[in-house]
Amino acid sequence: MSGSEAAAGTPPASLPGLEDIRAAARRLEPLAVRTPLLDVPGASARLGLRLLIKAEVLQRTGTFKFRGAYNRIAALSPEARKGGVVAFSSGNHAQGVAAAAALLGVPATIVMPADAPAIKLANTRNYGAEVVLYDRERDDREAIGRAIAGERGATLVPPFDDPWIIAGQGTVGLEIAEQCAELGLVPDAVLAPASGGGLIAGMAIALADACPTARLIACEPAGFDDIGRSLQAGKRESNAPGGRSICDALMAATPGLLPFALLTKLKAAAIAVTEAEVEQAMVMAFLELKLVVEPGGAAALAAVLAGKAGAGLGAGSGASPDGRPRVVVAVASGGNVDPALFALVLSRSAMK
Amino acid sequence: MSGSEAAAGTPPASLPGLEDIRAAARRLEPLAVRTPLLDVPGASARLGLRLLIKAEVLQRTGTFKFRGAYNRIAALSPEARKGGVVAFSSGNHAQGVAAAAALLGVPATIVMPADAPAIKLANTRNYGAEVVLYDRERDDREAIGRAIAGERGATLVPPFDDPWIIAGQGTVGLEIAEQCAELGLVPDAVLAPASGGGLIAGMAIALADACPTARLIACEPAGFDDIGRSLQAGKRESNAPGGRSICDALMAATPGLLPFALLTKLKAAAIAVTEAEVEQAMVMAFLELKLVVEPGGAAALAAVLAGKAGAGLGAGSGASPDGRPRVVVAVASGGNVDPALFALVLSRSAMK
Repeated sequence: MSGSEAAAGTPPASLPGLEDIRAAARRLEPLAVRTPLLDVPGASARLGLRLLIKAEVLQRTGTFKFRGAYNRIAALSPEARKGGVVAFSSGNHAQGVAAAAALLGVPATIVMPADAPAIKLANTRNYGAEVVLYDRERDDREAIGRAIAGERGATLVPPFDDPWIIAGQGTVGLEIAEQCAELGLVPDAVLAPASGGGLIAGMAIALADACPTARLIACEPAGFDDIGRSLQAGKRESNAPGGRSICDALMAATPGLLPFALLTKLKAAAIAVTEAEVEQAMVMAFLELKLVVEPGGAAALAAVLAGKAGAGLGAGSGASPDGRPRVVVAVASGGNVDPALFALVLSRSAMK
Repeated sequence: MSGSEAAAGTPPASLPGLEDIRAAARRLEPLAVRTPLLDVPGASARLGLRLLIKAEVLQRTGTFKFRGAYNRIAALSPEARKGGVVAFSSGNHAQGVAAAAALLGVPATIVMPADAPAIKLANTRNYGAEVVLYDRERDDREAIGRAIAGERGATLVPPFDDPWIIAGQGTVGLEIAEQCAELGLVPDAVLAPASGGGLIAGMAIALADACPTARLIACEPAGFDDIGRSLQAGKRESNAPGGRSICDALMAATPGLLPFALLTKLKAAAIAVTEAEVEQAMVMAFLELKLVVEPGGAAALAAVLAGKAGAGLGAGSGASPDGRPRVVVAVASGGNVDPALFALVLSRSAMK
């Protein structure tokens, strides 16, 4: 533990490391999709970058969340599995836990906000999980989850503050490193949407080893920029309660304890994006990538398209010091968006 | 030439073979995307099949058409390249030719219907091609294309009736065979959207070699089922003029001469799908695959979801004689759909 970590808050019990991510990759190998790293010739030319998209929308359940959830549940003892699992989630972690539990034959109960996108509620139920609804503004979802876990003898699968979850999400970073190497590229910056910070923290561990010169950047919605403010303050900051965002997947109140410790230690940066920038990224993904990306899943792409990725690179421009275009990887982390909202975003853009 | 081919019409000058497809694959290797073959656990379970989607919407230009166009233009002599290329197309071939010509430094002129989707017109111009518009009901696009080619000394790049084009599209079949082998699967049926028949004919050549037991099925919109009627009649039939379809990419009047000869020789089947089935497939691709698929690109998926693929398999049911689920591959061949139409399709489905 370094001095800056100790200053950041209570030292976490157990930070995951590279070996945990490699173990997760082996566990996930037969079941998780090795999602493609897609080239984007048009946008790359316009931006003066080599932009690559890690298409986690093509992951099982339409989001990276399956990776962490499966890694966590697969690590449970046979006895713990019998008791089942409980999770609280705005939707994508819910689907990941429900799908992973179903594959492993473990009963799952998911505590979800009543205003979660209909597609996420329906998918979670379709994977066979029991869904318990709560009021996002009135109820404490963690307390509800813990109460159910206590009653049923079930294991709580938290969305990000867990070494197994972080290690599972980190396999995204492992794959990015491998896929860049296959293309003969070294990434200058790797951006991912961030809520509690589990994905970007896991990726940071993997990439610190394989691509130590790559800058890791957490992308958050404006108004939910707790990771950025926390990294600046050197301690965990919270978002003002009661805020709303089109990015339903990125509304955690504060960074996770373990993710924050890792992001501090590994010197990650953060960028906030507006709703207009997020919608623009969703439309660009529709037009140029042919991918369905949900609002929260588009935050990293939004940061790149808005020209904000340069800030995290220090130099503030697209070209690297040696003149070659910078290699920028953005994770499109989820695609679970209601048809009506997606249609609205497309219609709004067509009217411009 | 077998007897059935001779009966099918004038013997074509030069049918492409497996070696032509392998040569095309080598030519395309550095530039074309090896598009993923995606598993669809939910739909597979519902249908009692192992359904796999070949995601050609992730191909350069958002459609498989880049493969054939690049293979054709790359085969031109340096002198012919200087004269440029001309193509007539409803949109996807236009984009393929424009993008391939730009990569090879060849000037391109594209003759497009004035009512082509705005996204296809804009993309074709963005790749640097000159676009000449024609009236779909009044003008003869082939005559316009030939006149321009004559005036400028340019080479005509036809959309499907050309051995190089068919060989390029056939690389989709080569990849499907390789990707199925990597998964330890043998496909029972392989379906692709069909208009002039270049894609399915090229795929049939590749798969006749690698997966000789797989049934190749051309999927057409109702009202544009010329391939199905032609295969039944044993001679090339035409669609009634003036018909309309949501599948703007699948409105060729009659099968190509070379594709028809190949489909006859290789005993391909055909299925027609309704517009409602196509829209349903677009929505399913949005919800479960997170892929943007245009109407014409969704015809094969529509046939599978509507339970029509069994007909082409003979047995009429999902299970193969030995009881394992049938392995069915559907090509999602293009994703170039206007945002307004996509929004309309999503909205219509949300109201059901």
